[in-house]
Amino acid sequence: MSYNAPIKDMLFVMNELANIDAVSALPGCEDATRETAEAVLEENAKFVSGVIAPLNHAGDKEPSFWHDGQVTTTKGFKEAFRQFADAGWQGLQHPQDFGGQGLPKLIGTPCVEMLHGANLSFALVALLSDGAIEALMTAGSDEQKATFLEPLVTGKWTGTMNLTEPQAGSDLAAVRTRAEPQGDGTYKIFGTKIFITYGEHDMAENIVHLVLARTPDAPPGVKGISLFIVPKFMVNADGTLGARNDVHCVSIEHKLGIKASPTAVLQFGDHGGAIGTLVGEENRGLEYMFIMMNAARFGVGMQGIGLAENAYQKAVAFAKERVQSRDLAGSAGPVTIIHHPDVRRMLMSMRAQTEAARALAYVGAGIHDIAHHHADEETRAANQAIYEYLVPVIKGWSTEMSENVARDGVQVHGGMGFIEETGAAQHYRDAKILTIYEGTTAIQANDLVGRKTLRDGGKVAKHLIAQVRATATQLGELDGADFAAIQGRLEQGAADLEAVVDFVLANAKSDVKAVFAGSVPYLKLAGVVLGGWQMGRAAVIAQQKLAGGDGDQAFFQAKIATARFFADHILAQSTALRASIVDGHAGVLALPEEMF
Amino acid sequence: MSYNAPIKDMLFVMNELANIDAVSALPGCEDATRETAEAVLEENAKFVSGVIAPLNHAGDKEPSFWHDGQVTTTKGFKEAFRQFADAGWQGLQHPQDFGGQGLPKLIGTPCVEMLHGANLSFALVALLSDGAIEALMTAGSDEQKATFLEPLVTGKWTGTMNLTEPQAGSDLAAVRTRAEPQGDGTYKIFGTKIFITYGEHDMAENIVHLVLARTPDAPPGVKGISLFIVPKFMVNADGTLGARNDVHCVSIEHKLGIKASPTAVLQFGDHGGAIGTLVGEENRGLEYMFIMMNAARFGVGMQGIGLAENAYQKAVAFAKERVQSRDLAGSAGPVTIIHHPDVRRMLMSMRAQTEAARALAYVGAGIHDIAHHHADEETRAANQAIYEYLVPVIKGWSTEMSENVARDGVQVHGGMGFIEETGAAQHYRDAKILTIYEGTTAIQANDLVGRKTLRDGGKVAKHLIAQVRATATQLGELDGADFAAIQGRLEQGAADLEAVVDFVLANAKSDVKAVFAGSVPYLKLAGVVLGGWQMGRAAVIAQQKLAGGDGDQAFFQAKIATARFFADHILAQSTALRASIVDGHAGVLALPEEMF
Repeated sequence: MSYNAPIKDMLFVMNELANIDAVSALPGCEDATRETAEAVLEENAKFVSGVIAPLNHAGDKEPSFWHDGQVTTTKGFKEAFRQFADAGWQGLQHPQDFGGQGLPKLIGTPCVEMLHGANLSFALVALLSDGAIEALMTAGSDEQKATFLEPLVTGKWTGTMNLTEPQAGSDLAAVRTRAEPQGDGTYKIFGTKIFITYGEHDMAENIVHLVLARTPDAPPGVKGISLFIVPKFMVNADGTLGARNDVHCVSIEHKLGIKASPTAVLQFGDHGGAIGTLVGEENRGLEYMFIMMNAARFGVGMQGIGLAENAYQKAVAFAKERVQSRDLAGSAGPVTIIHHPDVRRMLMSMRAQTEAARALAYVGAGIHDIAHHHADEETRAANQAIYEYLVPVIKGWSTEMSENVARDGVQVHGGMGFIEETGAAQHYRDAKILTIYEGTTAIQANDLVGRKTLRDGGKVAKHLIAQVRATATQLGELDGADFAAIQGRLEQGAADLEAVVDFVLANAKSDVKAVFAGSVPYLKLAGVVLGGWQMGRAAVIAQQKLAGGDGDQAFFQAKIATARFFADHILAQSTALRASIVDGHAGVLALPEEMF
Repeated sequence: MSYNAPIKDMLFVMNELANIDAVSALPGCEDATRETAEAVLEENAKFVSGVIAPLNHAGDKEPSFWHDGQVTTTKGFKEAFRQFADAGWQGLQHPQDFGGQGLPKLIGTPCVEMLHGANLSFALVALLSDGAIEALMTAGSDEQKATFLEPLVTGKWTGTMNLTEPQAGSDLAAVRTRAEPQGDGTYKIFGTKIFITYGEHDMAENIVHLVLARTPDAPPGVKGISLFIVPKFMVNADGTLGARNDVHCVSIEHKLGIKASPTAVLQFGDHGGAIGTLVGEENRGLEYMFIMMNAARFGVGMQGIGLAENAYQKAVAFAKERVQSRDLAGSAGPVTIIHHPDVRRMLMSMRAQTEAARALAYVGAGIHDIAHHHADEETRAANQAIYEYLVPVIKGWSTEMSENVARDGVQVHGGMGFIEETGAAQHYRDAKILTIYEGTTAIQANDLVGRKTLRDGGKVAKHLIAQVRATATQLGELDGADFAAIQGRLEQGAADLEAVVDFVLANAKSDVKAVFAGSVPYLKLAGVVLGGWQMGRAAVIAQQKLAGGDGDQAFFQAKIATARFFADHILAQSTALRASIVDGHAGVLALPEEMF
């Protein structure tokens, strides 16, 4: 089960679409040059292909297992994580002060994509640590930072996010876990948390649980939630490990996919109370957790893109090898199935959606870097607003498309795809979690409607739509049927997205349910149009390169063809999505509950 | 894991859309009245809910297993099949002369849907027997009929279809299995067949394998394939079982889904030759196999609909029970998630697609009955042509939609959906085979383009489009926003389908690959428009019933609301599908192979 990082496309996107030159011009990002990026990506690609990818199928066949409170991960995971950490990959995007490499998100993002593309189950442990690091960087005390950050950044320890409880899935207002102050600055934590990714494992010597809980006088609802650090082993003043804390894994789940990644039920305080320390201020836990979640949501979007790339590569390899039936245009004998038009259609669809989602995500990463590092405050704020608009789209749309891509990947394999040994089915199973965890697609879509569209009166959305139109205009200036076709679809897509944004703005107060009935289609529409925008930009640049005789001509021709496919097959859906939002809310809400 | 047959909707479709009165007026179908239909459906529903559905999850957890050439099926399957056979369900649609009940396909079809809805893995054994019965009825000799039909019809024995070989998936031209005449009217069969559903099991005392093989002088390709009966045990003149034949199960597959259904690798002739007898004439095997396949393809379409119905019911039950987050329109505390608009949207989408596919399939079954039983030859031929157009659409579209429905079913469950114990994930895994076996969606689509559209110059397609328009006109005569909305979408859908049929007819000779690049989108477009047509017809009838104060008013109101949803969310996709066919072929075919 091999995986080859698509470095050529990654570098094209970073250099040409996500504007790495602007990022390396930022204060503190001077090292993030094209040359550094290329060297980092190549090194990372070698590592994930050689060490991490070979463990992917093994993890599915021999999942991590629980026995008597301990979780034994799939054979090889522990050693691979040590190599990963020792080579500095966990710390790639984290500050040099705490043992990281301090590279910007734009360079970190392709590395994250590769890791997830190679092995989703393995990569999750790193993704959760990244989230814990972000939260502690933002809200941790100096002492907490000194104690926990370096071991997390260097992969000596790992981190977790503890939100969900049995009675409270996505609804954090319902969190019941208690935190009782002990008068010495510590708290005793009591409660049950479920769905805790890597909540218990044997790949690091300590696990830093970040846990949402309520103090005794906390107000009800989400405003009464605080965030605590509850390490698996207490940490002594000198950084060595102390007593085992009272947090225990009572079981792990039997899941559809990502089987090597242990999903734990954690019991806090069954033996007297788990010792925790408060992060930041009381009752601001949700706010801190959102820091973790926003980082993790972007990361889950990258999971979708990485998985889609891997599913595409597997399908291409099969389609080039499997011989079956004659060519429709005539052939002496049977041909490889990549000659059959519908196989070609599925491969193009997989490829086009993956490339579009990658481009949008990397562009988002570049915007994130400007928002964090630019010298000018106003520029930072403007870019932060755009980044925040993009996060639910990158998470929601990239993962929804990855389900479709994984599905097509099985389909290209025909009957062999349904046999587990082939490996295509694992992608189909693994993909299904991505639209659920770190906030379902509906939760991303509600965020897009509420915080990201209504709150600023559609300002960011309209700003992006104007940029889509500018790209359409550029396409209109080029000769050729491909550019005209992409231009037309892009203009229609911009009009559809604008109509939906206007619908959302006009009706949110008078008919909130009608607006939210279309929230997921709105998210998909935003993904399709903004992804199509990146493909349109890519086509313009590819044409400039071709005209200039620059570089890899076949690559640029393929990019234009892929953009054309995206326009006619994916972007063409924009008007139907608009209809399902603007006209379709009546049908969503008409049936009384008892008629279901 | 319960399943409740949707009898109310089934009877509405049979009585109002599929015109059971016309079927019961046919010669030989006099018993097939509304009353008989209702009684049969209720009895069947009781049986499948009580006996078959409870085995579904068990079959997934404890799949059938192979040991030393024997397959032991999931505990309870053997006894359930005995009850199924003894109650006469296997013979429902088969002739009374051979122990069946001789009911028309229109009454058999809902029973088939229920069986598959309750338990796909179990129902497959019956589906394969149905196919074998059809083939023997058409092409078997009197002696073969006398020997094999009654045991198959009464479920004493079961049947299989042996097409696929390791080197030949969908490509029957590549079949290599040999049949050597022995001079006594029998043949010795040598070869390997794979993917043989219920190719070995312990649920019946004999298995009747129908096997494609080549005689020594056969021409190459599909014109040199003959069909043979190869029973697991030889049958004596008195019908008792004789010697074990030389066909052996060497392994079964480890699959993504339908795990209780054993998928066998069968080895013929490793110990001297498996004894077979020729069915019909030499070299006409493919033609006979198509009889089985057409029956089986319709049956697989019903699998999609049954599975979608079950996934919908499970999602509804969860959405009515799971309490989480407040109502958007305001509520004191958290509410059941069916109050949340996006959950409602997913449930409506699952419901609308399932109802539309059911209506189209049952209408197809009624047309099949007219094609087989009508006194007038011309009427029979005209209806047969329509039925044959519909079969790939019913198979392809119903199964494609079932994947989407099963996916939404998991999504409604959120994180719980990813846990195997919940059961939603089983539907997601099971559904993935339906778009693959009995001919992938691409193969259905090629059939739709080639045999069903080009061969008659689009005559049947245009005839159906005219009927879609007639329904749109009827809708236009009704008052109300719902009817106007459905009318508009239906007219657009008819125009889109017509444009695609014209494109197919105009370009098939000059640019065959461009046409087949759009074959699957064409199949989906046909499904969406013809399914939307049935929903439009249903809305018209529901409105008449409401106006007349007839029957279950809430049911008719729900039918109109569901038709409206289908129009704005599903039928609205017709223009994008048209674009992907008419404009999109360039993008499908532009990339040279080496650029993948």
